[in-house]
Amino acid sequence: VPSLDDLADCFSGRLLTAAEDMAPFLTDWRDLWRGSALAVVQPDSADDVASVVRWCAARGIAIVPQGGNTGMSGGATPEPGANAIILSLARMNRIRTIDGIDNVIVVDAGCILHTVQQAAEDAGRFFPLSLGAEGSCTIGGNLATNAGGTGVLRYGSARDLCLGMEVVTAQGLLWDGLRRLRKDSSGYDLRDLFIGSEGTLGIITGAVMRLYPSPAARATALVAVPSIEAALELFDAVRNRLDTALTAFEFLSENCLSLVLDHRPDLRRPIQQPSPWYLLVELSDLQTADGIRDVLESLLATAFEQDLIVDAAIAETVAQARDFWAIREGIAEAQGRVGKTIKHDIAVPVSRVPAFLSEADAAIGARWPDVRFVTFGHLGDGNIHYNFSPPDGGDQQAFLAQQQPINQVVHDIVVRHGGTISAEHGLGQLRNREIARYKSPIEIELMRQVKQALDPQGLMNPGKLLP
Amino acid sequence: VPSLDDLADCFSGRLLTAAEDMAPFLTDWRDLWRGSALAVVQPDSADDVASVVRWCAARGIAIVPQGGNTGMSGGATPEPGANAIILSLARMNRIRTIDGIDNVIVVDAGCILHTVQQAAEDAGRFFPLSLGAEGSCTIGGNLATNAGGTGVLRYGSARDLCLGMEVVTAQGLLWDGLRRLRKDSSGYDLRDLFIGSEGTLGIITGAVMRLYPSPAARATALVAVPSIEAALELFDAVRNRLDTALTAFEFLSENCLSLVLDHRPDLRRPIQQPSPWYLLVELSDLQTADGIRDVLESLLATAFEQDLIVDAAIAETVAQARDFWAIREGIAEAQGRVGKTIKHDIAVPVSRVPAFLSEADAAIGARWPDVRFVTFGHLGDGNIHYNFSPPDGGDQQAFLAQQQPINQVVHDIVVRHGGTISAEHGLGQLRNREIARYKSPIEIELMRQVKQALDPQGLMNPGKLLP
Repeated sequence: VPSLDDLADCFSGRLLTAAEDMAPFLTDWRDLWRGSALAVVQPDSADDVASVVRWCAARGIAIVPQGGNTGMSGGATPEPGANAIILSLARMNRIRTIDGIDNVIVVDAGCILHTVQQAAEDAGRFFPLSLGAEGSCTIGGNLATNAGGTGVLRYGSARDLCLGMEVVTAQGLLWDGLRRLRKDSSGYDLRDLFIGSEGTLGIITGAVMRLYPSPAARATALVAVPSIEAALELFDAVRNRLDTALTAFEFLSENCLSLVLDHRPDLRRPIQQPSPWYLLVELSDLQTADGIRDVLESLLATAFEQDLIVDAAIAETVAQARDFWAIREGIAEAQGRVGKTIKHDIAVPVSRVPAFLSEADAAIGARWPDVRFVTFGHLGDGNIHYNFSPPDGGDQQAFLAQQQPINQVVHDIVVRHGGTISAEHGLGQLRNREIARYKSPIEIELMRQVKQALDPQGLMNPGKLLP
Repeated sequence: VPSLDDLADCFSGRLLTAAEDMAPFLTDWRDLWRGSALAVVQPDSADDVASVVRWCAARGIAIVPQGGNTGMSGGATPEPGANAIILSLARMNRIRTIDGIDNVIVVDAGCILHTVQQAAEDAGRFFPLSLGAEGSCTIGGNLATNAGGTGVLRYGSARDLCLGMEVVTAQGLLWDGLRRLRKDSSGYDLRDLFIGSEGTLGIITGAVMRLYPSPAARATALVAVPSIEAALELFDAVRNRLDTALTAFEFLSENCLSLVLDHRPDLRRPIQQPSPWYLLVELSDLQTADGIRDVLESLLATAFEQDLIVDAAIAETVAQARDFWAIREGIAEAQGRVGKTIKHDIAVPVSRVPAFLSEADAAIGARWPDVRFVTFGHLGDGNIHYNFSPPDGGDQQAFLAQQQPINQVVHDIVVRHGGTISAEHGLGQLRNREIARYKSPIEIELMRQVKQALDPQGLMNPGKLLP
């Protein structure tokens, strides 16, 4: 065990070694993984990060970067028995600059996502990255996993929102790539290489993120559709008529709706007649509210005439729109209350959603006839939350024991339809071995070559992302 | 000299070795660079490309990929005396698939850009990449240089339009990364690594490109502004009110306007009173023409009251809008007619355009008091065509001899303002040595590590991009 004395001198009060101090950093928030570390170090600046990395590199000690520790794939939890330092970016939480002309915000990697959203709003702008953990996840983690969320249909993923970044390399050198350019064609795209690399190539310490004009008005509807095919036809029509004014096109099954209503007596069924599928459609407009609501009404009237929809409720008030969203966003919690869950973080090409669902539903139904389907997601970007709950009164542990075979059946079908087994959570230590089944040996080899080139000692977040 | 016999057997009729056959491939279209090659090979498929690469790799022969040979930086021209094969992708020009639901077009790398635009239009969609060479440049070249053009403000560069790609690696292996996913977080972003790598890491053989709904209507105005500062203030107001409906915000100086009018008697001065700067503002709408024109009128009326603009002409007809664009697009040709030109392919953050111009104008004016400024560009994305012509009756060769020192003065100021010396043309062999002056040693070293990892033999387009 190397002596931590010189590190403790430099990071006095910012180096945790006591078991009780380290404990929250050694497990993920769901307590699915646990690891060990020599210490947790809490740098205040990119230069601090660089000295930690150099210290570790000189001693062959691994580094596990950690932001808000809200990851779903164990990417920020060290391996058990690891000879590792956890590098927490939580203290690096300054908004460095905000510029309304360039429409950018420059932030430390440890900034909480919600803080960034708020800073943008205070400056009269909109930062569109939005996801469940936004109150505690950090921009650095969002970039390291290429996070998605609800704004992807209109604004893209974390990758699409990043113009430049600052990174400490595996050698402990600081690369200042904090550009705010809309056009640049001057060499390899290192920025996008670090985005989504889950801390395995270097440590993101700062970023230039894009801002957008704030929408002035939104119009929201909950729509009952007879089938996923009809939903997709409606999506195609709306998207091609409205382009960027269409800001959400979510879907959920009747199963999901009743699950939420069972657990949320404060919410009412917006459409009385049950339907196999519902859509949550949202339009946004920079101008006035009336225009966009009229457009939504007319779209839905046409869709009704074409038998694409069976009924629709347009939110009359902001509170009603919030209730529609509460249904959509209440599914995960409602599902959690009825027992254990088996989840997938998958995406397929939008056109393949119906084929994927019919094939996967049949395959799962044939082998596990009792599981309950809890299917919902972002139809507009092909990201499906293809989840399962145990049968009523069923054995929870027996159900959970099926997780791995269910994952494999689902993922085999996903990949056959040109999809991905990780849409927005990253591979971490959850799916890093599995990926070898789904990516070609050539792609795995290219990834290994990049890893070997930038981190030849293999000290950056070992055991994550790569098989 | 290795024997080409076995290659000739495989590529019968598609292997050029006679000097007169090879000549057009050995120089760029402006005849600024000339190189040499053992042969030009014309594969029909990605598998063909892979076998050429393997053949070259086994013999230590370099490979120079070439698309439409329309590059501005010599990236597709081999080095003089090179032991190289030119790999022309021109025969690989199939549209593989087009899908209106996924809104993608899957193409061979050798597809002409205009062919892709046309195929999208035939399918009722819009492919927004648009640039001067679109009649002969190829998608593969557009991706290899991360091409920009006039659609960047709204739709982004070639990088932003690409969802997936197919690449032959330096080892001659075929990587099928032809994904059409909006969300994917499953490993390193190899796609973006190959985009902009100018053929130095592998050869792009196919790509999945994004399509968009076709705008139904456009409104176009030529606007006289008193200063660049006022132009920027107007840009900020319009962009924040209209977001994606603002599809062009170009600027040009009075110098540019008179230059074009001198050489184009068919065009008339749209605004009688001369002004230091003009803007070409275009709004697009998916709905009707009336709405968008009213919006433009009201915006300009407000801007007039705020003294941001001195006059404006709104195009009454499609022909008039075309004439406005003809002025903007006629500058390069008009400048060519008055003599030699010194050009730059630069971009700065949008907010820095006024500061850059005032500093650079002063620096150039002080040292070269006689040169004529021909300044125009895409104000909305910070990409400035900062060009010079010789003084009236001045010595052309003496003027051209100042190219290198003028470049350096301009580029030093560009980089001090956080800009790039290549916005959309790539580094090629024009700016690959110069980049060492402007990028940090750490960034150059990261680029070298990537190059060494993916192309350890150094056979992929040597002498390009890297210093």
